[in-house]
Amino acid sequence: MVEPLKVGLAGLGTVGTAVVRLIDKQRDALAARCGRPIEIVAVTARSKKKDRGIDLKKKRWLTDPFALATDPDIDVFVELMGGDGEPAKSAVEAALATGKSVVTANKALLAKHGMTLAGLAEKSGASLNFEAAVAGAIPIVKTLREGLRGNSFHRIYGILNGTCNYILTRMEQDRLSFEECLADAQRLGYAEADPTFDIDGHDAAQKLSILASLAFGLKIDARAVYVEGIRTISLADLDAASELGYRIKLLGVAVKTESGIEQRVHPTMVRKDSAIAQVMGVTNAVTIDADGIAPITLVGPGAGGLATASAVVADIADIACGTRTPPFGRPISRMSVSRKAPMQRHEGGYYIRFMARDRPGTAATIATRLAEQHISLESIVQRHTGDRPPANGRKRTPEPVPVILITYATSEDAVRKALAAIKRDRVISGEPQLIRIEKN
Amino acid sequence: MVEPLKVGLAGLGTVGTAVVRLIDKQRDALAARCGRPIEIVAVTARSKKKDRGIDLKKKRWLTDPFALATDPDIDVFVELMGGDGEPAKSAVEAALATGKSVVTANKALLAKHGMTLAGLAEKSGASLNFEAAVAGAIPIVKTLREGLRGNSFHRIYGILNGTCNYILTRMEQDRLSFEECLADAQRLGYAEADPTFDIDGHDAAQKLSILASLAFGLKIDARAVYVEGIRTISLADLDAASELGYRIKLLGVAVKTESGIEQRVHPTMVRKDSAIAQVMGVTNAVTIDADGIAPITLVGPGAGGLATASAVVADIADIACGTRTPPFGRPISRMSVSRKAPMQRHEGGYYIRFMARDRPGTAATIATRLAEQHISLESIVQRHTGDRPPANGRKRTPEPVPVILITYATSEDAVRKALAAIKRDRVISGEPQLIRIEKN
Repeated sequence: MVEPLKVGLAGLGTVGTAVVRLIDKQRDALAARCGRPIEIVAVTARSKKKDRGIDLKKKRWLTDPFALATDPDIDVFVELMGGDGEPAKSAVEAALATGKSVVTANKALLAKHGMTLAGLAEKSGASLNFEAAVAGAIPIVKTLREGLRGNSFHRIYGILNGTCNYILTRMEQDRLSFEECLADAQRLGYAEADPTFDIDGHDAAQKLSILASLAFGLKIDARAVYVEGIRTISLADLDAASELGYRIKLLGVAVKTESGIEQRVHPTMVRKDSAIAQVMGVTNAVTIDADGIAPITLVGPGAGGLATASAVVADIADIACGTRTPPFGRPISRMSVSRKAPMQRHEGGYYIRFMARDRPGTAATIATRLAEQHISLESIVQRHTGDRPPANGRKRTPEPVPVILITYATSEDAVRKALAAIKRDRVISGEPQLIRIEKN
Repeated sequence: MVEPLKVGLAGLGTVGTAVVRLIDKQRDALAARCGRPIEIVAVTARSKKKDRGIDLKKKRWLTDPFALATDPDIDVFVELMGGDGEPAKSAVEAALATGKSVVTANKALLAKHGMTLAGLAEKSGASLNFEAAVAGAIPIVKTLREGLRGNSFHRIYGILNGTCNYILTRMEQDRLSFEECLADAQRLGYAEADPTFDIDGHDAAQKLSILASLAFGLKIDARAVYVEGIRTISLADLDAASELGYRIKLLGVAVKTESGIEQRVHPTMVRKDSAIAQVMGVTNAVTIDADGIAPITLVGPGAGGLATASAVVADIADIACGTRTPPFGRPISRMSVSRKAPMQRHEGGYYIRFMARDRPGTAATIATRLAEQHISLESIVQRHTGDRPPANGRKRTPEPVPVILITYATSEDAVRKALAAIKRDRVISGEPQLIRIEKN
């Protein structure tokens, strides 16, 4: 009789209860696949009384996550409490320090303390698995850590936040404003009451820092990620993008450049016929540009109880099967420091939208300022809003007209300088909109 | 000093030479990731003299693959010779029997002898890895075998043959005939001089049988796959599909039904806005429908020297890292027999295109025959080709008109019976075209 793998589970929210159910349902299949049964022997959560619709009678109940993490009778500590502070941090650290393997879905903890945790795991020989921390059920961590071990990478980018993708999708498909779509997302449970973390790009940045670490051997550091959210994206931008053959997505991008690995999260124009542009609603996707071969894209559910639980269970099964790998795919001694992306040196195409004052000389001024910065244009779209005389019969003050520019590859520095000069020249009204184009 | 993993490589074609180059290029990274170096110590190929642009001086050259497979100084035998017969079969068997792990890209060998090989591996404790056998660089084998170990599956389907997808893409995009596109594919090296194996669906069927085995625990058997190729697909079909919101792809589908797992390869109508419909050219893709979660789709290069080599190297790295799993994800004792898909019982929607004789009563006859088989129609498209009087001024014999029917879900048996009756009624001319619709 083979000894079962004994699991202690901390956190019985949506994901935790789904993990209990899934391990129960897949008991036989998992035992056959791993050569030994997986058994949740002890659990902890904030409230013992809450009815979660799962049978916990045969499992020990501990009140202290730290005690569970160091319990001599468990082999694996599964951390589903969340948060980058206590009790998750100390509990995970204690488990790893005592040689117990850890499975976690906690991207915030990894983004902040990933290297400390990896160090503890390396020292004690424990596993630290976190498939569920990025892109839910999509096996992107395993793919980068093991599946593509033979490749080196040029770039990795993805739709890592379902809330933002849902909002952008609804705006485009139903012609609604950002605010209306956000309210809908909140009603449907896709966005928190305080949506800042999602819509300002911080959730995607944490996930990107994990992927960049796996792909490029960077010491994980979410603070090195340049972050912009989707609050400023308007229907006018989505329409202009569509007309020019693009779609706007909030992408996380980690890319090898001459000055190191650039990590950034921002609204991005992607070609409408690319795989990533087809990804709609709360779905996540990651594209991997490995050296010398065509891109590989993984698409799937990025959140949800069962989707996340399936990643957690796969991680536990890996431990039961004896699969071993350094947490970030290589020893810490082989990892390099993340450097803050120097966005002023970012090179690429840009989408620029502004309202130009409708008077003689405006076009010449704008063209001159762009030329001064050696910016070439791929396309210009300018639409007069029409020359209807004002209703009151008085002489019309010309309304500003929307102008959309698509530049060829240039530097962000050049674009910002040109726009600052154009603003000083007072030929545009309001703030220009700037969206980076990602070649794909 | 850690002992290197010693590899013997049989076959130095495009993939084999790419493997030699890649292991050389990635030497340090692989050693860091696996904790031990990987070294190709011995090789064999048909001709020793051929200049392959790689340095083989430090590797032993053996003339006999069987001798290489059983060489006491190698840990892993990499089989890249191809073919389901000798010498590949005996060499792989001998390696596994003596406890040497095997990495192969040989789908034909697996489709025909996979269970025998798995049995040998199970007995000796050797690994049998074959990521490169299906969908090139896409890590679909690892995903099914390890990454989604927590899931059970409802269906798995994919574009598994790049040649067919290239032809269908070119036909649609450039409005060329099947024959023209096939000739182009041959010119570009995407299709063999004898293209039968690809375009008649047999290549996809072998790959599907491997995926079905991994996903559903079926004893691999390519003969259990129902196979239809793409020879009969015309531009008229692609146009009609497009108009109705579909695209035609050669899919391999393995799906759980009431009468067991149905394995089939045939031209398929997929919704144009689905992830799989966006996959163009020689690209491959696989969609996994796991129980209870949204589909997961993997897209990437299905062929090419470096793409295939990267999968081979990842497989070797897994052995260097000590990752162990049964070849098909579970012990043979837990696998069940593949049964030939009973296509007459296949349930689904159908696209039917035929030329109807343009005379009174035709529509009524067709409608009656469909009703007799309880077939309901989702849409009917009929186009008169125009009523131009014949040039010679004589009384016009009405030309047959194309009719396109889309049925709601029904059984293949019912569709075939209705079409047979319609043919007997002599209201259509020629053979009707029948394409299954896959819900996605």
